[in-house]
Amino acid sequence: MTTEETSSEVTTTGPTAGSPAGSPAPSRRSLIGWGGAGLALGAVAAGGTVAALRTGEDAVPIADSGAAVAFHGAHQAGIATAVQDRLHFAAFDVTTTDRAELVQLLKDWTAAAALMTAGRPVGEGAYGGLAEAPPDDTGEALGLKPSRLTLTIGFGASLFAKGRFGLDAKRPDALVDIEKFPGDNLDASRSGGDLCVQACADDPQVAVHAIRNLARIGMGKTAIRWSQLGFGKTSSTTPDAQTPRNMMGFKDGTRNIAGTDAPDLAKHVWVGEKDGAKDGSAWMTGGSYLMARRIRMHIETWDRTSLQEQEDVFGRDKGEGAPVGKAKERDEPFLKAMKPTAHVRLAHPDSNHGVKILRRGYSFTDGTDGLGRLDAGLFFLAYQRDVRKGFIPLQRSLARNDALNEYIQHVGSALFAVPPGVRDKGDWWGRALFS
Amino acid sequence: MTTEETSSEVTTTGPTAGSPAGSPAPSRRSLIGWGGAGLALGAVAAGGTVAALRTGEDAVPIADSGAAVAFHGAHQAGIATAVQDRLHFAAFDVTTTDRAELVQLLKDWTAAAALMTAGRPVGEGAYGGLAEAPPDDTGEALGLKPSRLTLTIGFGASLFAKGRFGLDAKRPDALVDIEKFPGDNLDASRSGGDLCVQACADDPQVAVHAIRNLARIGMGKTAIRWSQLGFGKTSSTTPDAQTPRNMMGFKDGTRNIAGTDAPDLAKHVWVGEKDGAKDGSAWMTGGSYLMARRIRMHIETWDRTSLQEQEDVFGRDKGEGAPVGKAKERDEPFLKAMKPTAHVRLAHPDSNHGVKILRRGYSFTDGTDGLGRLDAGLFFLAYQRDVRKGFIPLQRSLARNDALNEYIQHVGSALFAVPPGVRDKGDWWGRALFS
Repeated sequence: MTTEETSSEVTTTGPTAGSPAGSPAPSRRSLIGWGGAGLALGAVAAGGTVAALRTGEDAVPIADSGAAVAFHGAHQAGIATAVQDRLHFAAFDVTTTDRAELVQLLKDWTAAAALMTAGRPVGEGAYGGLAEAPPDDTGEALGLKPSRLTLTIGFGASLFAKGRFGLDAKRPDALVDIEKFPGDNLDASRSGGDLCVQACADDPQVAVHAIRNLARIGMGKTAIRWSQLGFGKTSSTTPDAQTPRNMMGFKDGTRNIAGTDAPDLAKHVWVGEKDGAKDGSAWMTGGSYLMARRIRMHIETWDRTSLQEQEDVFGRDKGEGAPVGKAKERDEPFLKAMKPTAHVRLAHPDSNHGVKILRRGYSFTDGTDGLGRLDAGLFFLAYQRDVRKGFIPLQRSLARNDALNEYIQHVGSALFAVPPGVRDKGDWWGRALFS
Repeated sequence: MTTEETSSEVTTTGPTAGSPAGSPAPSRRSLIGWGGAGLALGAVAAGGTVAALRTGEDAVPIADSGAAVAFHGAHQAGIATAVQDRLHFAAFDVTTTDRAELVQLLKDWTAAAALMTAGRPVGEGAYGGLAEAPPDDTGEALGLKPSRLTLTIGFGASLFAKGRFGLDAKRPDALVDIEKFPGDNLDASRSGGDLCVQACADDPQVAVHAIRNLARIGMGKTAIRWSQLGFGKTSSTTPDAQTPRNMMGFKDGTRNIAGTDAPDLAKHVWVGEKDGAKDGSAWMTGGSYLMARRIRMHIETWDRTSLQEQEDVFGRDKGEGAPVGKAKERDEPFLKAMKPTAHVRLAHPDSNHGVKILRRGYSFTDGTDGLGRLDAGLFFLAYQRDVRKGFIPLQRSLARNDALNEYIQHVGSALFAVPPGVRDKGDWWGRALFS
């Protein structure tokens, strides 16, 4: 167990529930003092819900939606952590050429991330500093609960380029340049990035606030290259939980790696001690690799497809999500009962030498595409120990054979080396890489 | 009281609480039968929360977030209804030139809207029809609660153009062509539209599902012109509730029209019987006018501004949201204590001949702008009886004098005539207009 919920309010199921390690999560406001009289908020500020804090409308606490997830640990939170409802993901270009400036930024970001994930504002807060100075925190999360915010950093291959920051000898072999798969239609402005931060929270305002404040702290040293809002989770990393439906109306990814102490984490997700011994990437021990793909769904075409075709494409029934010929979502699939091109069959570990990845994708809808269609789909996020054994062979197979390809297109792609967790207050994001 | 919550679970405050008019809201799934065994969902399907239905993680009911809002009534729901957490808004171009086809579409949309707002799928559902046919419902809201979904339709001026659908004599004088205000930088592809649908819900997947299914039903007759996701509400229409913070970290719009039986509704929001007597728009009686403006915030510039300047710009303190010199958010503002350019001072009814509008805006973050900045801001939505007495004079004053203009830009604009409510099952959106 490495990422632990810090609040005794937590009531997750099974082995994902962390050991209670503190008192109930404080509201952001209560931590930084309160200029006014408290008043309408007073009654609910201590144990109220996000909704109650924001509107005063209901007074029933949401068990864990407001709680804090521990920032420090052997692994970064936001990977094995039970998936939160909303996402704001940002990829950054590093604009400074000064290594010391980049290191300082990573230290500053780490300090800010530790505060924000605990439900606290950055620095002196949104109104705690000098009136003559810009506030340290932008303030839009004042009064909101921690909302299980996690912030997870990753390093892109471009950061390791020769002559940039002296990191080329430390680039892991596993941080490959991702090949172009059949059907890819990648937009460079939605791909790559020197750094990424994944912000997940149950309240989207908390996730947006976190990315926005990191961007503000990085001003002059980094610039946001692209960002993605995810309005709804499509994966479950909680054992026995229902898999949320994607924008095609199906449950996909039932057999995810679930639970913060699942044996599959060590086997398929966390980089092991021996993995980086040869290539100078021992700094990645305890980390993981994040594959991000923006997958546009042609939902208008899908919506004109018969139910039978839809179910054949996935290899599941639409109502329950059961594999072909089975009754329940979690029944063991009988792959040979499915069409050879069925998504479940092709993506199953048995069709991929036992490969498993940890998915944390989110549905998105970003307005329209100029042709009267919604720009909607899946922002695919998957963590794995080595993409050369995980995503790449899997996607090679899917890109060639998956019946789903008629209805989807990969339009963005980025791979990041996600370092291990920040151990304690003296540690910072990327210390092992830069030391 | 016209829009009533239909569930006895509802626990809103003060006069917005509707008379309980039915049994607790059913889950979408329970209404259409259940192919599989229920299982993990069984325990929580009846009274559980949205979160519980989606993940099985918590079992504490959210008092009203899952409830249904009545679709039928004298006024459309989604105006005086207590503001929901999330928004999906779509403007449509009508592509058919056939009046009868448009009328049929409006009838079909009405039927679908009545089902979806009750938490039911469209038609035969996502897997209830023939296997050989596309499902009537796209399915991604299966198992989700009604989530207080409201769907509100509006008609744009272009729908009334001569020679189109024979509606030119019925165009209300109040449905004006909106002038260009100083500082406007409007993007035509984010402005206008023949029709609009505002979908508000506490679960974003429910709002997105609704717009997507209406778009699907409209295929070949309408096309989405633009759409906007709003991740967080910025207004409260609940008396005494805290005003949520906008992306500038401030509470704005404290003095909103609040409560479904507020006297201000009849005075400032609902079109009266006499309003349309002269111009052939008696069909609008009981309706309202919706002004939508996409307001980009230059948050990076704002974040470099001193706290004092920020508070001067709004005329409020940042922490509590109290007007200058006052202690609490809802204290009566003393306008002369504020700078003449302060936003609160300029927008106050006392500075605008008593004008009030009902605001229902949402914060948005739509990726980046290509210049390393977040494309974030406020999607402003305001309902009023007559924009010529409401938004237009207000915005003329703000556009000229508001100190906030240094940090914002209006980039999208649309005005819609929002017809009265659908009275009963025989009624449909726009019947009075087309009859």
